[in-house]
Amino acid sequence: MIIQLKPDATPHDLQRIEETLARHGWKSMPVQTQYRRYLVGIGKREIDLRQIGHLPGIADVFRVTDNFKLVSRKWRIEETCIDLGDGVRIGAGHFALMAGPCSIESEQQVAETIAHLEENGIRIMRGGVYKPRSSPYSFRGLGLEGLKMWHAQARPAGIKIITEVMMPQQIEAMYPYVDIFQVGARNAQNFNLLDALGEVDKPVLLKRGISGTIEELLQSAEYIFSGGNERILLCERGIRTYEKAYRNCFDINAVAILKERSHLPVIADPSHGVGLRRYVPQVALASVMAGADGLIMEVHRCPEEAFSDGQQTLDFKEAGLLYRKLALARQTLRQMDAWH
Amino acid sequence: MIIQLKPDATPHDLQRIEETLARHGWKSMPVQTQYRRYLVGIGKREIDLRQIGHLPGIADVFRVTDNFKLVSRKWRIEETCIDLGDGVRIGAGHFALMAGPCSIESEQQVAETIAHLEENGIRIMRGGVYKPRSSPYSFRGLGLEGLKMWHAQARPAGIKIITEVMMPQQIEAMYPYVDIFQVGARNAQNFNLLDALGEVDKPVLLKRGISGTIEELLQSAEYIFSGGNERILLCERGIRTYEKAYRNCFDINAVAILKERSHLPVIADPSHGVGLRRYVPQVALASVMAGADGLIMEVHRCPEEAFSDGQQTLDFKEAGLLYRKLALARQTLRQMDAWH
Amino acid sequence: MIIQLKPDATPHDLQRIEETLARHGWKSMPVQTQYRRYLVGIGKREIDLRQIGHLPGIADVFRVTDNFKLVSRKWRIEETCIDLGDGVRIGAGHFALMAGPCSIESEQQVAETIAHLEENGIRIMRGGVYKPRSSPYSFRGLGLEGLKMWHAQARPAGIKIITEVMMPQQIEAMYPYVDIFQVGARNAQNFNLLDALGEVDKPVLLKRGISGTIEELLQSAEYIFSGGNERILLCERGIRTYEKAYRNCFDINAVAILKERSHLPVIADPSHGVGLRRYVPQVALASVMAGADGLIMEVHRCPEEAFSDGQQTLDFKEAGLLYRKLALARQTLRQMDAWH
Amino acid sequence: MIIQLKPDATPHDLQRIEETLARHGWKSMPVQTQYRRYLVGIGKREIDLRQIGHLPGIADVFRVTDNFKLVSRKWRIEETCIDLGDGVRIGAGHFALMAGPCSIESEQQVAETIAHLEENGIRIMRGGVYKPRSSPYSFRGLGLEGLKMWHAQARPAGIKIITEVMMPQQIEAMYPYVDIFQVGARNAQNFNLLDALGEVDKPVLLKRGISGTIEELLQSAEYIFSGGNERILLCERGIRTYEKAYRNCFDINAVAILKERSHLPVIADPSHGVGLRRYVPQVALASVMAGADGLIMEVHRCPEEAFSDGQQTLDFKEAGLLYRKLALARQTLRQMDAWH
Repeated sequence: MIIQLKPDATPHDLQRIEETLARHGWKSMPVQTQYRRYLVGIGKREIDLRQIGHLPGIADVFRVTDNFKLVSRKWRIEETCIDLGDGVRIGAGHFALMAGPCSIESEQQVAETIAHLEENGIRIMRGGVYKPRSSPYSFRGLGLEGLKMWHAQARPAGIKIITEVMMPQQIEAMYPYVDIFQVGARNAQNFNLLDALGEVDKPVLLKRGISGTIEELLQSAEYIFSGGNERILLCERGIRTYEKAYRNCFDINAVAILKERSHLPVIADPSHGVGLRRYVPQVALASVMAGADGLIMEVHRCPEEAFSDGQQTLDFKEAGLLYRKLALARQTLRQMDAWH
Repeated sequence: MIIQLKPDATPHDLQRIEETLARHGWKSMPVQTQYRRYLVGIGKREIDLRQIGHLPGIADVFRVTDNFKLVSRKWRIEETCIDLGDGVRIGAGHFALMAGPCSIESEQQVAETIAHLEENGIRIMRGGVYKPRSSPYSFRGLGLEGLKMWHAQARPAGIKIITEVMMPQQIEAMYPYVDIFQVGARNAQNFNLLDALGEVDKPVLLKRGISGTIEELLQSAEYIFSGGNERILLCERGIRTYEKAYRNCFDINAVAILKERSHLPVIADPSHGVGLRRYVPQVALASVMAGADGLIMEVHRCPEEAFSDGQQTLDFKEAGLLYRKLALARQTLRQMDAWH
Repeated sequence: MIIQLKPDATPHDLQRIEETLARHGWKSMPVQTQYRRYLVGIGKREIDLRQIGHLPGIADVFRVTDNFKLVSRKWRIEETCIDLGDGVRIGAGHFALMAGPCSIESEQQVAETIAHLEENGIRIMRGGVYKPRSSPYSFRGLGLEGLKMWHAQARPAGIKIITEVMMPQQIEAMYPYVDIFQVGARNAQNFNLLDALGEVDKPVLLKRGISGTIEELLQSAEYIFSGGNERILLCERGIRTYEKAYRNCFDINAVAILKERSHLPVIADPSHGVGLRRYVPQVALASVMAGADGLIMEVHRCPEEAFSDGQQTLDFKEAGLLYRKLALARQTLRQMDAWH
Repeated sequence: MIIQLKPDATPHDLQRIEETLARHGWKSMPVQTQYRRYLVGIGKREIDLRQIGHLPGIADVFRVTDNFKLVSRKWRIEETCIDLGDGVRIGAGHFALMAGPCSIESEQQVAETIAHLEENGIRIMRGGVYKPRSSPYSFRGLGLEGLKMWHAQARPAGIKIITEVMMPQQIEAMYPYVDIFQVGARNAQNFNLLDALGEVDKPVLLKRGISGTIEELLQSAEYIFSGGNERILLCERGIRTYEKAYRNCFDINAVAILKERSHLPVIADPSHGVGLRRYVPQVALASVMAGADGLIMEVHRCPEEAFSDGQQTLDFKEAGLLYRKLALARQTLRQMDAWH
């Protein structure tokens, strides 16, 4: 159950609602986000919502039987739009591309990438400065200094920055330089990190776990939302299966299902979703047709020279052609949607 | 290695080629299909193709290092077109829809479905008369009588029939009434059935196994091709994973990869690929954008009353809307392809 | 529901029972096995068993809510013993080893293997004469001639033969030479083959599918049982997962669960279950402790020279040591079981 | 490559070794653990180890081609023994049981559990005070206060404590009360946590990820070892598959493979490994026979009342019987090992 509180609800109102729920054997958890106040009710016994809805301080009450609540579309029917400022929006009809290298490597690489993005009208740049690596001996990224260098070039160009954060202690230092915090697949159930990002007033892109279920992804998003941050992007990036012909199995079903079960924007990552450069365009186009609100892709001036993930990275020319196709696909989809 | 033989190659020519290969430690297998004669060479040691190519009886020689040979695009670069006659073609630029119920149930159901297909310009009807069922106590289909009844209605309407065959002994009796033999996911490695279908001169649609790899699918197709039947359709129908939010995980990557690794047409089955009616359109559209040459879908006048698979079956109205969208998606893709 | 019929139940009795079930909306299927007659009732509505049990011709009635019925332990509590004659028994306290090569290769190989088995007191020899192979170009076994040659040596030695059958048409010719028909993992849902083996009066070892569920295995066994053959061995042989460190993931949980959910004997195949020779002994010993009634293992005088599966095959010396350990493990388990 | 340094190697020695490696195109990383100093060399080109081994400061040099180095058995052949003090040892022939509830709930629960452990001669108690939960609304554990309360009872009883740590910041506060830090499956690739535990001088039990590979587990262990902590326990706890008949698929193969590929002790978690109480004993016994050095199990006076995981928790009586069986199985295995 989600109880949306009035802005002027008093502590006394809140207490009375909680007591009423408790009398029915329900637990409740108050949530204060950037935008609103809620009370999430958790319980199994049936309650007549009308018995709750009339209490002072309550704006509205919704029954949500999913294991996730605040991120469910069962109570918030309209799609969420994430506004990054400067006219950059994602979701609720706004489609966004995020492109850039796997790892931030050098000033020159950042400059080249920004030029590529500007040329193609792309407003959000991806790149890793803290890299989660299976082996302790692999390159782990340029760290905070790399992020500052990147930001120094991106800000004047009006380019927004999305980059991965790996632990709560990094958030504060990264904060001034980041527009979207990314949670990687290996941290999709790092609950302390999710809690910490709930307290941040910048958007979070949450990747599905390496073999995470759709429900687990939504429950992880619930951590962030119930922690206070409503601005979440859900990201499908492929799952681990028995198939060895590619890196991950991009779950096109999940794109369609997430769109229907949550009001949050859904982003597809075709680069990790297939892991092989020559198939990235097909998976990207398919994602758009399945309803994705945006894509996050790996591009590099010269993928063969990239520090990491070169085999799944497009070069600027391939990427440029793909952007045009994606725009046409998006336009086709809008045309179809009008047929309903 | 694939050696394409001249039509007039003599037994003596063949013997000499085989002996030459044997001297290099290679085994060889003669293949006679509907269209051509080949010799498939299997070996590991390096051979200079020029040492073979000049022998009498040889039209051409191709190095194919894949575990599958005749179905590989490494030697046959142009896409295969399956021609069913009466202007019905699949592959090499021809896109085909196949729609119909999971099970053939009654004359009336067949009549309604045919009317629906005619209305939408669809030329191939799917339907099961032999149903593979996990439990011996489930409905197993109307059998041969059902097939005859179906055919009696379909032929006058110019509708082609695709239906599943479960064992070699059924082929002969089914033959007069079938246009495409379908091999189901549970029989994807029923090698005796594949062998038997190699001897048939009608096309075969081969479904990927429930947890079959892309390579296994291509090797199973190789059974049919090397048995003598070049007319094979590869079908992606979703794989089994840990995810419980849907029936199967439609493998969009596989569509792109099969198109690139084989010259055979690739068909997508979005109905089994997600298993839930409300998501079938998104998966269908995505498949088209990933390059599928056709779709096989479950439709029924009233899915709630279907004998089987109702939860993944579209009703006629939903299907009609989807066909229009698919046509537009296909047109968009052709427009994009011209950009290359 | 399982209705066990009296031996002298008349057709009229049967008809009356079926009509009574039909009045409650239940379907029923008569089953005549080697040993007994049953009527399997399939329905969802509640029936008071006493309303059925008093009818003439009925010996006993059991409620079985599983999707599988006759193979369930819910109605037949005591474990089934498969008696192969000559003192060779499997299940219900009788532990059996089956060992031999992946493929039957030659008279000499058969002779060596039989000598090895005799030396170690093993009474059942495994070996393939029809080999299911992913590629049409691989060695497919010696066929019926190989089986006859093998049988000619095994019979005088008192060694029982288990070998794989791939299609219904092979059964008749193989019948005189086979003691246990094996259904391979790729045919675990080849329902026509299962149907055909239901009509055979020799035991069947049924392997779990490559990614088959425990329930699917039991439902496949139900095909054989309801077809008339009660003598079935369930075989766990590892499942397909994402892990690349071994061939299959031996599912030790399945051994314990199958033992509890079915009255049929459970056989473990550690050779395919891990696929790497050096780990076969550990998996074999673990299977015994989890409750397996027997093991089927690949052994060869010289695994490096085996036609197939050499990398998972033990040599005679390794196997000999393992047999001794298995005997001690089995003895330890019996000792523990007395503690309950 | 692993270079074991002499205790008295000087900074100048170290510099010279690193320069020599660099000349061959190799990177090197110095590692100082509780016990020794190493230099881990990472590179692809061949080096003649004798060119390195003679340099001053070097005790020994080992070629290790695995992706993991310090945890590999390729250089350290003898098994590692983790000594917790007071005669509690794990590995290298010492078998250890760790038992206790999923969550620490109350003083009384702790007291009952300790009494149960003492009665059965078990020296290590498991229990969660920080619980990773999929949903933000679930019980998350008693936290540090719970840990202190537990410790206050465990220390006088001579019982060692193993409990999960979820983030680096918790380590310092938990340190005085913990004997083994546990890393949960969801944090198996939380590399910052692994780094932080590398700096701790207490043992770490590292669980395999929910769908982690064996190699990933070993690489995660490498993080801890290369961070400075040699005392690591590897834990197999079941993997995620398509099978719905149980919670996780206990990977018995992994137990055998980890024992062979690493010198670190291997612990089995049969409770999570199958997730259903009635099958825990079989999986536990199987693990012992596959070579596990210890087990971690969930026990509770009354599983039905447990705050979490009750369905996979043994009661004290069941557990008591299992401990006796495990002791006998362990004794049987030792007897067999003497046969080699």
